[in-house]
Amino acid sequence: MRAISQRSFGEPAVLQPVDLPTPVPLPSEVLVRVRSTAVNPVDAMVRSGTFRMLGEPPFVLGWDISGVVEEVVPGVTRFEVGDEVYGMPFFPRAGNAYAEYVAVPSRQLARKPTTIDHDHAAALPLVGLTAWQALVDSANVRPGQRVLIHAGGGGVGHLAVQIAKARGAHVTATASAAKQDFVRSLGADEVVDYRGTDFTEKVGDLDVVLDTVGGPVGPRSIGVLRPGGLLLTIVDRTDTALRAATISAGRRFAGVTVEPDYVGLEALAKLVDEGRLMPFVEHTLPLEQAAVAHELIESGRTQGKIVLSV
Amino acid sequence: MRAISQRSFGEPAVLQPVDLPTPVPLPSEVLVRVRSTAVNPVDAMVRSGTFRMLGEPPFVLGWDISGVVEEVVPGVTRFEVGDEVYGMPFFPRAGNAYAEYVAVPSRQLARKPTTIDHDHAAALPLVGLTAWQALVDSANVRPGQRVLIHAGGGGVGHLAVQIAKARGAHVTATASAAKQDFVRSLGADEVVDYRGTDFTEKVGDLDVVLDTVGGPVGPRSIGVLRPGGLLLTIVDRTDTALRAATISAGRRFAGVTVEPDYVGLEALAKLVDEGRLMPFVEHTLPLEQAAVAHELIESGRTQGKIVLSV
Repeated sequence: MRAISQRSFGEPAVLQPVDLPTPVPLPSEVLVRVRSTAVNPVDAMVRSGTFRMLGEPPFVLGWDISGVVEEVVPGVTRFEVGDEVYGMPFFPRAGNAYAEYVAVPSRQLARKPTTIDHDHAAALPLVGLTAWQALVDSANVRPGQRVLIHAGGGGVGHLAVQIAKARGAHVTATASAAKQDFVRSLGADEVVDYRGTDFTEKVGDLDVVLDTVGGPVGPRSIGVLRPGGLLLTIVDRTDTALRAATISAGRRFAGVTVEPDYVGLEALAKLVDEGRLMPFVEHTLPLEQAAVAHELIESGRTQGKIVLSV
Repeated sequence: MRAISQRSFGEPAVLQPVDLPTPVPLPSEVLVRVRSTAVNPVDAMVRSGTFRMLGEPPFVLGWDISGVVEEVVPGVTRFEVGDEVYGMPFFPRAGNAYAEYVAVPSRQLARKPTTIDHDHAAALPLVGLTAWQALVDSANVRPGQRVLIHAGGGGVGHLAVQIAKARGAHVTATASAAKQDFVRSLGADEVVDYRGTDFTEKVGDLDVVLDTVGGPVGPRSIGVLRPGGLLLTIVDRTDTALRAATISAGRRFAGVTVEPDYVGLEALAKLVDEGRLMPFVEHTLPLEQAAVAHELIESGRTQGKIVLSV
C-alpha cells in the first residue's frame, strides 16, 4: 500500500512516499481504507525529533483518520464492511495514519458524522477530542457557566468555542483582529483582540479558562477565574510552577492531554450532525505531498486544519 | 522491577522471573503498581506458540490487572496517585501484565470495585468484558428475554449468567453435575446437566444463546433459538459454516471478541458493588509461580480463575 515514512529525523523533506505491506488487523480490530488523514502540530514535532514519542525512525506518522471499513475481523460486532468511520487510533503510540490502510481497535473508532465529508471528519479527532476531554470530561462545563477560550480561532480553540456554546456556556474568546469575525461566527458571545487589548481587563469571575497558547497566558489567567474556578491548559500541563500558583490562589488546575475514546468521538459526531460543530479545513493536499503539509503547518501562517487526501 | 518473561515458545517452564526496567508512561497514561494479575486460557496459547499474537519471544504475557496508581503523567485527569484501578490494557497487543508495574492509557482503566480485593478484581476484566460485550454490547439483552448460557460454570459462563440475570433475563445454563449447585447459586433459573441431558430437549424459543464451548454445541444451538434469535459465540467466531447455517435457518449470528473499554469496566464494577456480580477465584499464587499457574490452567481441572499476586 502507499504510505509516507521517514528514515531519519529532520526537515519536512525526510517525509517520503514508500510502499509498505497492508497491515493485518488483529482480533477486535478492523482494517480501514483511509480516505483522509489530518496533519497536527505534534506530527511535525515527532518528525523533526523535537518530541521523540515514537522512538527512532523509520516510522509512519499520523493519527487522525476518516475512511471506510474494508475488513472486519470475525468477532467484531460494532462495524460492518463499508461503514464510514473516523478516529485517532493508538495515540500517543504509533498510529501509522499517513497510509492507505490502517488496522484499528474497533473501540477506538466511531461512525463518521454523516453531514460532513472525509476531509472534514479527519480534521476532527485529535483537536476535537482534546477540546472535548478538556471542557467536558475534565471541566464538565454546564449551562450558564462563564468560559474563556484562549486563541478561539486556533485548531483546538475553534472547536472549543463551539463545544462550550453547545454545552450552554457563556463564551468569551481571545483572537487576533483578523480572526474576530471567524470566532464570532462560531458562536462566541464576546471576542477580545489579544493584541490590542488586555484580556484581564475585559473578563473576570470566570468558571473555566482553557489555555491553548501557553507562555504568560496561563499565569495571567489565574486572576480572571472566580475562586474555585478551573484553569485548563493543553500546553503547560507539566508546568508545576503554574499549577502551584493556581492552587495557592484558590483556583483549580488541570493539564489535559488527549486519548482515543469512542464515547467522545460519538459525542462529537452527534454535535456535527446537529449542526452545532464544524471543523475548519484550510488546505487539502494529496498524501504524497505530506512534506508540503508539514512546511505549511510549521510556517505558523495556517488558520485551519491541513488534511491529506489518500 | 520483577516480571515474568519467556525466551522461547514452549511448556510452562519457559516462564521465568526476570528483572526489567520499570515502564515509563507516555502522555495520557498512568503507571500502575500491579497488585494482582490473572491468568487466562489465551495466555497459555500465546506462551506455547499455538496462537502467536505477540510475535516472537521474548515478551511479557498477561493483560488482566488490578492495582494502585503509582504515577500520573501530567495531563491525565481521570485518576490520581493512590487510586485503585483495574483493566485489561492493550489486548490483543502486548499487555505486559505479569509484572510489578505497567503503563496504561487512562481510558483503558476504571476504578476497581470497592467491595472486592485486588485478586478478585484482577479476575474480572478479560472474562467479564467478554461476557459484557457479548450479552450487552452485541445482544443488548433486555428484561424478560430468554437466554441460554453454555458452560454456565466456566470462566466466561459464570459471569455471563450473573450479567444476564442482572439485565432481567430468564437464564438457563448448561453445567456438569458437579457444578449444578454453583451455577444455581449464581442465579440461573434453570440448569441443564449437559452430560446426562440433551439441552435441545429442555429449552426452545430462546432469544439469545451464548456458546462458550464450541464444537457441536454451536450447530445444535440453532434450533433452540426463536426465529430471529441470536447465536453468540466466543469460540467459533471465524466459523463461516456455522454462520451460514445460522443465517439460513432464519436466526442471527455474532462471533464476539473482547477489547479494552472503560465503559464496560465501569458497568462491571457497578454490578459488583451492587452485589450482583462476583468472579470466582480458585487459586492465588505468587507471581514467581506463573509456570505453576499455567500448568493448572492447562490441566483443564480448574473451576475458577487463577490469579497471580504481585
